[in-house]
Amino acid sequence: MPLDRSQPDLLNAPSRTADSRLRELICGPNLSFLMEAHDALSAAIAEQAGFQGLWASGLSISSTLGYRDSNEASWSEVVDTVERMVSAVSVPVLVDCDSGFGNFNNARLVARKLAQRGASGVCLEDKGFPKMNSFVGERHPLAEVDEFCGRLKAVKDGVADPKFVLVARVEALIAGRSEQEALDRAAAYLEAGSDAILIHSRKATADEILSFAEAWGGRCPLVIVPTKYYRTAVAVYRDAGISTVIWANHNMRAAVAAMRSVCERILREESIAGIEPEVASLNEVFGLLGYDELSRAETLYLPADAPRG
Amino acid sequence: MPLDRSQPDLLNAPSRTADSRLRELICGPNLSFLMEAHDALSAAIAEQAGFQGLWASGLSISSTLGYRDSNEASWSEVVDTVERMVSAVSVPVLVDCDSGFGNFNNARLVARKLAQRGASGVCLEDKGFPKMNSFVGERHPLAEVDEFCGRLKAVKDGVADPKFVLVARVEALIAGRSEQEALDRAAAYLEAGSDAILIHSRKATADEILSFAEAWGGRCPLVIVPTKYYRTAVAVYRDAGISTVIWANHNMRAAVAAMRSVCERILREESIAGIEPEVASLNEVFGLLGYDELSRAETLYLPADAPRG
Amino acid sequence: MPLDRSQPDLLNAPSRTADSRLRELICGPNLSFLMEAHDALSAAIAEQAGFQGLWASGLSISSTLGYRDSNEASWSEVVDTVERMVSAVSVPVLVDCDSGFGNFNNARLVARKLAQRGASGVCLEDKGFPKMNSFVGERHPLAEVDEFCGRLKAVKDGVADPKFVLVARVEALIAGRSEQEALDRAAAYLEAGSDAILIHSRKATADEILSFAEAWGGRCPLVIVPTKYYRTAVAVYRDAGISTVIWANHNMRAAVAAMRSVCERILREESIAGIEPEVASLNEVFGLLGYDELSRAETLYLPADAPRG
Amino acid sequence: MPLDRSQPDLLNAPSRTADSRLRELICGPNLSFLMEAHDALSAAIAEQAGFQGLWASGLSISSTLGYRDSNEASWSEVVDTVERMVSAVSVPVLVDCDSGFGNFNNARLVARKLAQRGASGVCLEDKGFPKMNSFVGERHPLAEVDEFCGRLKAVKDGVADPKFVLVARVEALIAGRSEQEALDRAAAYLEAGSDAILIHSRKATADEILSFAEAWGGRCPLVIVPTKYYRTAVAVYRDAGISTVIWANHNMRAAVAAMRSVCERILREESIAGIEPEVASLNEVFGLLGYDELSRAETLYLPADAPRG
Repeated sequence: MPLDRSQPDLLNAPSRTADSRLRELICGPNLSFLMEAHDALSAAIAEQAGFQGLWASGLSISSTLGYRDSNEASWSEVVDTVERMVSAVSVPVLVDCDSGFGNFNNARLVARKLAQRGASGVCLEDKGFPKMNSFVGERHPLAEVDEFCGRLKAVKDGVADPKFVLVARVEALIAGRSEQEALDRAAAYLEAGSDAILIHSRKATADEILSFAEAWGGRCPLVIVPTKYYRTAVAVYRDAGISTVIWANHNMRAAVAAMRSVCERILREESIAGIEPEVASLNEVFGLLGYDELSRAETLYLPADAPRG
Repeated sequence: MPLDRSQPDLLNAPSRTADSRLRELICGPNLSFLMEAHDALSAAIAEQAGFQGLWASGLSISSTLGYRDSNEASWSEVVDTVERMVSAVSVPVLVDCDSGFGNFNNARLVARKLAQRGASGVCLEDKGFPKMNSFVGERHPLAEVDEFCGRLKAVKDGVADPKFVLVARVEALIAGRSEQEALDRAAAYLEAGSDAILIHSRKATADEILSFAEAWGGRCPLVIVPTKYYRTAVAVYRDAGISTVIWANHNMRAAVAAMRSVCERILREESIAGIEPEVASLNEVFGLLGYDELSRAETLYLPADAPRG
Repeated sequence: MPLDRSQPDLLNAPSRTADSRLRELICGPNLSFLMEAHDALSAAIAEQAGFQGLWASGLSISSTLGYRDSNEASWSEVVDTVERMVSAVSVPVLVDCDSGFGNFNNARLVARKLAQRGASGVCLEDKGFPKMNSFVGERHPLAEVDEFCGRLKAVKDGVADPKFVLVARVEALIAGRSEQEALDRAAAYLEAGSDAILIHSRKATADEILSFAEAWGGRCPLVIVPTKYYRTAVAVYRDAGISTVIWANHNMRAAVAAMRSVCERILREESIAGIEPEVASLNEVFGLLGYDELSRAETLYLPADAPRG
Repeated sequence: MPLDRSQPDLLNAPSRTADSRLRELICGPNLSFLMEAHDALSAAIAEQAGFQGLWASGLSISSTLGYRDSNEASWSEVVDTVERMVSAVSVPVLVDCDSGFGNFNNARLVARKLAQRGASGVCLEDKGFPKMNSFVGERHPLAEVDEFCGRLKAVKDGVADPKFVLVARVEALIAGRSEQEALDRAAAYLEAGSDAILIHSRKATADEILSFAEAWGGRCPLVIVPTKYYRTAVAVYRDAGISTVIWANHNMRAAVAAMRSVCERILREESIAGIEPEVASLNEVFGLLGYDELSRAETLYLPADAPRG
């Protein structure tokens, strides 16, 4: 008698080798959205809300682990975190791999491990190791183009699955370089095997992104991260032919604000009665994590008179 | 030239062997509060808000890892999570060790590992392995008293440091047993070496807790978890001689509610402009995690003309 | 330009979903052999020597991790170890899962994780958690048959892949029970979905194994572990219709003897000149681990004038 | 009633904050020896044989994990391995940290984690990240002196404990640079806070090491790794004023040779009867890992009528 699969089943790690949904999202004709998640719980929430794909954010994962977004987290800590995210959802996950955790050899090792654990793609940025978060400070040296193309090729060759998505992130605008350099780098990365280009900006408006997109001319899908230029309407991105928008850190930032507020209120009010209506109920949490599946499984697999443990 | 330590330094893992602050909180004369945290980020937030001690909640840690609170998370995954929490704060951390991850030998192994990683104490509950969350279902078989006392003694002997705190959690009321059985168990656990008793209840009022506290008569500190009887004012606990109140899962539940709301709004509004004022700024996140320390350290340790990586 | 795959490539984690080789070994008509391995290096050595399949031994893995074979190692530590073993070889790996790391729910979680990481099958023994190594002491309580069958069914249902092999290990003879009880248990475990029965013995002769095999009458493949009855010739097992022999701990024990001898000689001789001819050369080690592949990959992916890191 | 501590107790993780034994070995007046170990089992064997200190070899640890010695293993995998080694022995452990796993910030993070887990010191070499094993190939670019000194200072400042030992490894001779450059680098590293200098060579004789030692003139303790120049008698090193000799990979290489031989014999002989006298007995393994302590603990902590699990 099989389990009823109508409910989410956390234990279910379906074979993802045949899964081309991330490729369809990023390379398809419509504007798509990836929502940041940083652990299994945030991933489950984003999926349940309706997102079709997730962004395993380096900044957010680092932050929950207590690390600065400067490659303090080890590559295996990131892989372990992504595995738990993937196991908690059925939508595809694109993983922020920073600059690849070292040289071409580290990059392909991490990409293979991530593919094995069920990730659907990786994004590599053209910096050295360790990198620094693109929104911090002015020191953002870029990788040499040839060397970075070697990283991209190694990842492409290293993950056998043609459905696995490789996104190359261009940091030229972050580093204060010209649009022309950004375009040249994007072209080289496309030539090296990237499936899409993430063009990053930390300007308060989308101007440089839109200018880049126009000059790029649709040579391959473009991915953007409007963390700083958040005011632009997505209709503008549709018109500009952008492929994918990543809401890159908003689950984590929502959690920080909420936890800070609840901590301060509990301390001030010396009570949880006031915040009780504002926090999720335990039943909501249990629902997100499939406790009913476990209850049904106990009926199936645990003799009625046996202790649970 | 030493680093300026005026700012929080995540890397700083002070020797905690001499730390008796958790003991002072739980065994001291005043009512104290422990705030739930489940990862380094939530721990840093709770400390910065002003809490003097943290509760590393089994439910919350399991949830963020994507596991049910039924000992799906391995003991080493829990230890690794606690290490990162401890490294992110300077306040002491009491760790929810469920039923000890097996028998006496597993319990003392985990307690020693946690002590080595900087935890200040553990709480063990009198159930078998695996356990089930006390708020789920009606099947809550209790451990035999003698066998559970063996677990407590093994932990007490196993962690050499006399400042390490051992809390025994009595699940008799959860299991529908009598107050007398709860009292008898508490007395046996105290005799076995526990420093404090956590008396647990899932009633909507504090009545059975207060009755127990009165009957207990202050033989050792009492710890409570008013998740279900959240309406009672803490003044009542002060009058009843309770030692410590644990706000056991409210950071996690606040995060869930906030992430759910943000996900739904972003999907509906197709924009992050609306939620931007409600989520934490990146600078707040950077402030919690000591990015300024890293910036100062780069000045100290990285030659001006060297690439970061 | 693809990599030359004529040499072993450690990074290559082939999709093992279609891999039925362990099933063919255990369920095929010929007597097969599984060699113990406990880490990636021992696995690579056993494969290179010519073994067609590996046994990821709980005792050996525990020992190298510094744990007693009493479920001190966490399930995730075991899964991580097995992942590295699988990544280092192309032959299939059967994983010793002890009693399943808890109840049915823990057992199926671990089995699913192992399947995801590339293991080809698991073996579960009918004991409680924690277990104790079958060769240590006299205290070997058996699991209730119904409860253990629940664990087996949960693993069978939990791993979707029909090629994944489930072996049920009968500890009745270890526990001093009758052959009839061993037969009854084996029949129940077969009914619950096991693909093969491992009948264990710690007698110095194979008598009770051979008697069991005769009484069993080929109802399903039989697996044996002749650690204690090592003198019996394998021809006897072929005649008795045994399916698979596991050499269960001999790589680890060979390593222990060799390391002990080398340590003592170096201390005594205050020199490594004497032992140099007896230990593997560095080139042998490099050959086992594919350093030539890395060298070729550097030529492909790293610009000639770029630093390695 | 306390446990009898006359037997090794694996669970015992003594506070190592006050431990200056590694400093005494390396900085003391006599020639000392460190034996390579790569996991808890090899560490326990080396201690039991009589070694006073251990070398947690990057090559050996990488090899057992299935990685090339080119920083494929993540820093946290190395830290976890070292923790298990430290927990298995009471002698001090010096950890091979390669080039520090990144820049100064990664180096101090790893050093702090290692100190927290009980390591007594670290060794950093003046290369980039990732490095390549010094015995492989001709491409061994050196770090800039200033940048590497920043790594050393950061580790020195980052680990508060003054007993923690910092060894700087000079790779100039490996890279084909002059003795003068090696001396200049050593002087700079000493100035930056190193407690000792490891001067590395891959020549077949000790000539360049001895020449360096003479020119160095005892400015601080010298550590050597005579893997390639293994024929030189240690009396020569005593005369030259060398402080410490590291037998850097011989446990691993002994294990490889023994496992290869046993695998080949078992396959050829289709029997384990022949190799049984040559491998360690199970009782030897149990003795190394303290099974008797567990047996005594069961008597103390587990009721006679209770199942083990």
